[in-house]
Amino acid sequence: MRGYIVPVGGGEEKIRDRVILSRFVKICGGKRARIAVIPAASGKPNTGRRYEKLFEEIGVREATTLPFESGQDCDREDWLERLQRADGVFLTGGSQIRLSRILGGSPVSRILKERNAEGQHVAGTSAGAAFLSEQMIAFGEEGPTPRPSMVTLEPGLGLTRRVIIDQHFRQRDRLGRLLAAISYHPQAIGIGLDENTAAFIDPDDLIEVVGSGAMTVIDPTRIEYSPTDPAEGDDPLSFIGIRLHVLVDGGTFNLNTLEASRDGARRRE
Amino acid sequence: MRGYIVPVGGGEEKIRDRVILSRFVKICGGKRARIAVIPAASGKPNTGRRYEKLFEEIGVREATTLPFESGQDCDREDWLERLQRADGVFLTGGSQIRLSRILGGSPVSRILKERNAEGQHVAGTSAGAAFLSEQMIAFGEEGPTPRPSMVTLEPGLGLTRRVIIDQHFRQRDRLGRLLAAISYHPQAIGIGLDENTAAFIDPDDLIEVVGSGAMTVIDPTRIEYSPTDPAEGDDPLSFIGIRLHVLVDGGTFNLNTLEASRDGARRRE
Repeated sequence: MRGYIVPVGGGEEKIRDRVILSRFVKICGGKRARIAVIPAASGKPNTGRRYEKLFEEIGVREATTLPFESGQDCDREDWLERLQRADGVFLTGGSQIRLSRILGGSPVSRILKERNAEGQHVAGTSAGAAFLSEQMIAFGEEGPTPRPSMVTLEPGLGLTRRVIIDQHFRQRDRLGRLLAAISYHPQAIGIGLDENTAAFIDPDDLIEVVGSGAMTVIDPTRIEYSPTDPAEGDDPLSFIGIRLHVLVDGGTFNLNTLEASRDGARRRE
Repeated sequence: MRGYIVPVGGGEEKIRDRVILSRFVKICGGKRARIAVIPAASGKPNTGRRYEKLFEEIGVREATTLPFESGQDCDREDWLERLQRADGVFLTGGSQIRLSRILGGSPVSRILKERNAEGQHVAGTSAGAAFLSEQMIAFGEEGPTPRPSMVTLEPGLGLTRRVIIDQHFRQRDRLGRLLAAISYHPQAIGIGLDENTAAFIDPDDLIEVVGSGAMTVIDPTRIEYSPTDPAEGDDPLSFIGIRLHVLVDGGTFNLNTLEASRDGARRRE
């Protein structure tokens, strides 16, 4: 059974109520969990250690940083073995471009895909969240009215092709960018995550919202018109028949049935 | 037959391609049109004169500023007579609060409602746009995730109760504010207008988009869940089953059938 895929919108609470990180630890086995932290997006020397400490404070068996920085790093047998063995992997924030440059096409990416399919849980925050899906929003402009020039998509890790993820959603006003991304891949569901807000995508592709902000769902599956071949340039794009949901903590969205529920998580308990 | 109601998202082009103002003049009768300009929202001394000149340059029979600033002004027989006689009325931008304070409940408002019902066309830009409908977004925070504290609604002019209008939509990131407004009035359609973009609402309640930006339509009529009695405070709100359209120049939305069309205007010609 596939493991959870857990994109986080960035800015997850690290001091007081660490609801997202604690929930991730619980899924990974709680006190028995082995967590690997991959700070490749960050480029800062102490990002990995910071998350190690956080996971240790929450209470895990082991938290290890795997500081992949180059192609050679991504071939290191000892690190790859640790990665294989982890119950959960956490990708920090930073730059999407660093992630695809360092990890794209490497043994690290291959192992993450294989092990996630077998049950390893993979979370990522901010840039780490965008990287989880097959299509990654690499960069783009802000603003709610979609324009083709707003978005650049690059290949991501590819744990799922069913969603395209954007993060810091409310904080950086990214509806237009997510709509523009969907215009290139209308078979995917757009997921916009606020800061301190996570989408826990379970093995059956039911998404549960955890955290203090909202998850905005852009469902284009009943769309009547979308610019499938967006013209280059800065003209705004038309969309007709998008379904839009805004879900908060405890809300669910089922990627199979496309049903949203305000309290699906509670009803499941 | 009712006249057109024309909210404009602000920042309408005044120098080069004055497509919105020219279209308004055309509807009002072109060279035979008598236009009254109401700069009450502005509070600046030359706003009215500026629009007078613009309308004269486009070519009208008469453009007159009616500088209502007080309750006494709103009783002036000579000004009210000019207002009665106008083919079209244009409300400038400025502050929504000034508009409701100066014009709310006055003979000016009464005449505008009566004459619009008889065929007089009424346009407003920015604050003037927000004021046209029954529920006016008076002020509020920015950001796409809706929160109850984001929006304050006050009574507007009341030419239509079928839409709630927000303006400077893309430029000021107001999706969340418009969603929060709709949570109070889910029987209305939310209309978000970018700058230099207008919604020409015709006598049959077909809206046509004119200008260089987009009109975002928030249709809550098939909503499955919305917070009908939003709690006070800053918790984000849930919405399930909003229909979202983004329409550009030439697109139409029919307030009776709730159908959106990308090129409804062209097909009507």
